[in-house]
Amino acid sequence: MVTGPVGGRRETRVSDMSATRYAYLGPEGTFTEAALRQLPEAATRELAPMVSVPAALDAVRAGQAAAALVPIENSVEGGITTTLDELAAGQPLMIYREVLLSISFALLVRPGTQLGDIKTVTAHPAAQAQVRNWLAAHLPEAQWESAASNADGARLVQEGRYDAAFAGEFAAATYGLEPLVTEIHDAENAQTRFILVGRPARPSAPTGADKTSVVVWLGPDRPGALLELLQEFAVRGVNLMLIQSRPTGAGIGNYWFAVDAEGHIADRRVAEALMGLKRLSPDVRFLGSYPRADVRPEDLAPLRPGTSDEEYVSAADWLNRCQDGRF
Amino acid sequence: MVTGPVGGRRETRVSDMSATRYAYLGPEGTFTEAALRQLPEAATRELAPMVSVPAALDAVRAGQAAAALVPIENSVEGGITTTLDELAAGQPLMIYREVLLSISFALLVRPGTQLGDIKTVTAHPAAQAQVRNWLAAHLPEAQWESAASNADGARLVQEGRYDAAFAGEFAAATYGLEPLVTEIHDAENAQTRFILVGRPARPSAPTGADKTSVVVWLGPDRPGALLELLQEFAVRGVNLMLIQSRPTGAGIGNYWFAVDAEGHIADRRVAEALMGLKRLSPDVRFLGSYPRADVRPEDLAPLRPGTSDEEYVSAADWLNRCQDGRF
Amino acid sequence: MVTGPVGGRRETRVSDMSATRYAYLGPEGTFTEAALRQLPEAATRELAPMVSVPAALDAVRAGQAAAALVPIENSVEGGITTTLDELAAGQPLMIYREVLLSISFALLVRPGTQLGDIKTVTAHPAAQAQVRNWLAAHLPEAQWESAASNADGARLVQEGRYDAAFAGEFAAATYGLEPLVTEIHDAENAQTRFILVGRPARPSAPTGADKTSVVVWLGPDRPGALLELLQEFAVRGVNLMLIQSRPTGAGIGNYWFAVDAEGHIADRRVAEALMGLKRLSPDVRFLGSYPRADVRPEDLAPLRPGTSDEEYVSAADWLNRCQDGRF
Amino acid sequence: MVTGPVGGRRETRVSDMSATRYAYLGPEGTFTEAALRQLPEAATRELAPMVSVPAALDAVRAGQAAAALVPIENSVEGGITTTLDELAAGQPLMIYREVLLSISFALLVRPGTQLGDIKTVTAHPAAQAQVRNWLAAHLPEAQWESAASNADGARLVQEGRYDAAFAGEFAAATYGLEPLVTEIHDAENAQTRFILVGRPARPSAPTGADKTSVVVWLGPDRPGALLELLQEFAVRGVNLMLIQSRPTGAGIGNYWFAVDAEGHIADRRVAEALMGLKRLSPDVRFLGSYPRADVRPEDLAPLRPGTSDEEYVSAADWLNRCQDGRF
Repeated sequence: MVTGPVGGRRETRVSDMSATRYAYLGPEGTFTEAALRQLPEAATRELAPMVSVPAALDAVRAGQAAAALVPIENSVEGGITTTLDELAAGQPLMIYREVLLSISFALLVRPGTQLGDIKTVTAHPAAQAQVRNWLAAHLPEAQWESAASNADGARLVQEGRYDAAFAGEFAAATYGLEPLVTEIHDAENAQTRFILVGRPARPSAPTGADKTSVVVWLGPDRPGALLELLQEFAVRGVNLMLIQSRPTGAGIGNYWFAVDAEGHIADRRVAEALMGLKRLSPDVRFLGSYPRADVRPEDLAPLRPGTSDEEYVSAADWLNRCQDGRF
Repeated sequence: MVTGPVGGRRETRVSDMSATRYAYLGPEGTFTEAALRQLPEAATRELAPMVSVPAALDAVRAGQAAAALVPIENSVEGGITTTLDELAAGQPLMIYREVLLSISFALLVRPGTQLGDIKTVTAHPAAQAQVRNWLAAHLPEAQWESAASNADGARLVQEGRYDAAFAGEFAAATYGLEPLVTEIHDAENAQTRFILVGRPARPSAPTGADKTSVVVWLGPDRPGALLELLQEFAVRGVNLMLIQSRPTGAGIGNYWFAVDAEGHIADRRVAEALMGLKRLSPDVRFLGSYPRADVRPEDLAPLRPGTSDEEYVSAADWLNRCQDGRF
Repeated sequence: MVTGPVGGRRETRVSDMSATRYAYLGPEGTFTEAALRQLPEAATRELAPMVSVPAALDAVRAGQAAAALVPIENSVEGGITTTLDELAAGQPLMIYREVLLSISFALLVRPGTQLGDIKTVTAHPAAQAQVRNWLAAHLPEAQWESAASNADGARLVQEGRYDAAFAGEFAAATYGLEPLVTEIHDAENAQTRFILVGRPARPSAPTGADKTSVVVWLGPDRPGALLELLQEFAVRGVNLMLIQSRPTGAGIGNYWFAVDAEGHIADRRVAEALMGLKRLSPDVRFLGSYPRADVRPEDLAPLRPGTSDEEYVSAADWLNRCQDGRF
Repeated sequence: MVTGPVGGRRETRVSDMSATRYAYLGPEGTFTEAALRQLPEAATRELAPMVSVPAALDAVRAGQAAAALVPIENSVEGGITTTLDELAAGQPLMIYREVLLSISFALLVRPGTQLGDIKTVTAHPAAQAQVRNWLAAHLPEAQWESAASNADGARLVQEGRYDAAFAGEFAAATYGLEPLVTEIHDAENAQTRFILVGRPARPSAPTGADKTSVVVWLGPDRPGALLELLQEFAVRGVNLMLIQSRPTGAGIGNYWFAVDAEGHIADRRVAEALMGLKRLSPDVRFLGSYPRADVRPEDLAPLRPGTSDEEYVSAADWLNRCQDGRF
């Protein structure tokens, strides 16, 4: 089933304590859990593993969790399309935080298994792309079997169904396995970005190094509209960090776009660009402004001249004087 | 002398009645006077001819006139650079009205003069470009002499100094001349555009077919800045009607720009574009928003989708909701 | 294992007949096979099902197949990232044809199975998104199990491992199953686009309704580069049909782009835009120009004035005359 | 008369020696003559003063002179519209060279005249703007009279018609006057730019610091066309040095543009931009590529990456390989 918590009914009841409950893409032992535990407040929250991204987000929508941590982007596999699509549709949600996690895999086996014993390996399909070269070099004859999650793969190894699982090293203990090989990752710098999603509320205050996410639909048959979209940001000196096309479902050639822009909705240049998008687009959804996990404010390049809040305020003052004839 | 009214001291004193006094580029009998008389209120104003555009504008700055009518652009000769330069520098002024006048010349002579008698012709140098072909066809041997104004040329013919003057037919009576030939104009559709300039005050309300004038300096050594200037307008769907470069005086290659844009400073798309200019430019001067003389509101092309005031207001509402987390 | 044909060694040897052999994403009974059979020449080719997209493309690279048909984009799930990534890396390949296939699923069961009997369902994960609503409405209690392909899911049903499989109705016969429900698809107009890929050669001649595919890397830390990329096309009047970001693998925030543009590399506007990309980008790969499957030449909007081949030729002639001083 | 050499018929006959004859905007003693004498070859040419810019250019068109030196732009007064308009219309001409001349005036008087004696001053109207402040400070009561040229003003002083003339100090000897005050110029860095114009021929080879001039008409009612024009240059990394609007003569609101761009028609980025203009514009006229007078090649900023000839050639090679399928 695509919705519902892992492990059944016990954990699905709406809790009075939902404000203290964070859902995440489970099961226990996934990279998502590891990312969630990087958040300081995680220590004081009930962490509820969910069977899928939609399930985690629906728990938030239904008030069963205060927030959900889900993967949004992977430096090897790209955007997590399920997450993007879930945020773009249904009852609105908002992103409050992002977490970056370096990804490397361990090959988990039942105690005593040697490399030469391994005939079958398993993991989530996304892991396959990240260990492909390692596999070809070290286990060229092993049979790949996909699992619903890396943690689930570990569980299947525990149950004896497969010989080895790729998962985070931290998952070994949970499933009574041992890491035969660690630090496996075809790509250097493999990272996954996770987002903490909640119901809409006032965004947290700007930190000086923020990111703003929106999804935009540009309407049918508007080949030049993407350029117009980019110019709404460019003319105001707002850099884009990500632009990802997604199908609208209305047939090949119909897309909406997920956009991550530098800055915060409270920054005037960002606010004006967002209003530009709103006027340009028949359907735009604000997904939140939140602190960047990849950079500190002091490491950012300076703003383009003419785009600071001070310059916006000064220009508005000047306009008022012009409109009043006081100059 | 470059400043001061025509005809000496009598007319230069500051009048209690300055609110009822309109200066114009004199002397009497120029096209400027003819344009001024198209304004309904001219009938109830004291009309004061001035010796030059700077003199007319300085009369306004000094409070000696409520407004001044001066030429700004000619469909044959182009921008009237003296006017542009005067508006760009010195104490700020504002444009309140524009007047379009079709220009055609009469050849004015002393009564009795025949075409064959004419050895010398005179007029303001700007007139020369507009009658060149006619001259080459009908008076190929005549000697051209420049006059300070077309009306002044007529006066010189009256005094017997030259044989004929090109001027507006309406000038004949003033100088005791008669029009030997009328409707002379090399170019079809020759027009001059005049502006009524006053001290800064709140612009008149939008009419639906308005024009906004600014002068902008883009700073030194910014080869891409003109493109940025145009994009400030383009991204907000504001069409430009005129862009004219003028030297800053700081050496070849240093320019400022006079820009006429469609719309009124009270239109949100125009207001936002102007603020964009202000942030882009180290020095921008608002010259006014005023009704267009060339077109009625009902003849304008529709706005580009997404740029109406309603859409601006709606986008601002949406932004507020996003900033408050109410969506 | 990720490479190698389905069914083992017999079919992997390099054949003298490779020119007559088309690989495809197998196994038999997939939508890919159905798409391949839409190509007229498929009737005279040996059709070789491969276990994965990489396997199909590697068969072409290795000379074991003349071409491979693989999915590239799905109107529900979006770009097939494995295919995009495989085309962007490794030995160059070229796209020669595209095929559009409307996608609807049948629920395949062993003869005699009733809807009420179904406890487990299976299919490729991509199918899940397309039948989610149907499942929730008709089989809310059924357990989902992912299969390596829809056809493989059908095989697993045949073997009795699961109760029902979502697959193309055409797959029923192959696996001795029967379609219990047909025409299942959550989204109207669900389509998948497939491409026929071969080794590089001269593209086929323009048809008047063509598409050109490239992948472009814009270099590190160039936030404005995507806008520049779009302008290379826009300034030459070339519409973009698709732009998809993909991670470079060098960490979050590093992307390359897959771009589909209207027109053919033999069209001068497209050729000039491609050269512009080449100069802009440290790494651009041409993926082919080929006929569009979605539109006939007579249904296309007219070119933007100034962008036809005739106008390009005429401009080049004019330039030559200018360079020679003959004008 | 608007055409014809100064001083009558003797000098207008077509000479066998036209290749050795340079026309210029006369009369003798003007800044134009001073600029012309800066050209090394001027020493071996017959220098023929003409009564006007059109007369000088027509002498070239008629084969009566090999070339003509005329002013094109003044750092105080702006573009010399007569020259721009003459180049834009009529039989095509081409610019081969530019000369920059610093402008400062001397106040020329008959020997013995003192400052206190001066009641009337004269010069070409363009000079007035450059000495206005000086006049207001030192001769506030003097009457201004316009002359056909600064040299002509000097002649009128020689004849006793006026008391003093503003002109180049070098004009004093010619007219038997003496410089009472020298180095008069309201603006620092006052310069005039002159161009040497001939009949079309192959432009001289690039020097590394060149300029290309064109005039472009963008057609009627195309408010966005100026932005498109700028983008044709911008997308290819070609900086603009000057853009000047001029009326087409078809009524207010109809303009063509004179454009000076960095680089030479032999530079591929410039050539491609020019072809872009040609396709964009119903009427574009190439006015020449010639060495810049204001800067040496070694002082130029580096080209934008991707816009050098080498990169253009490399991109063309790549395109050819793509079109042939060799990659």
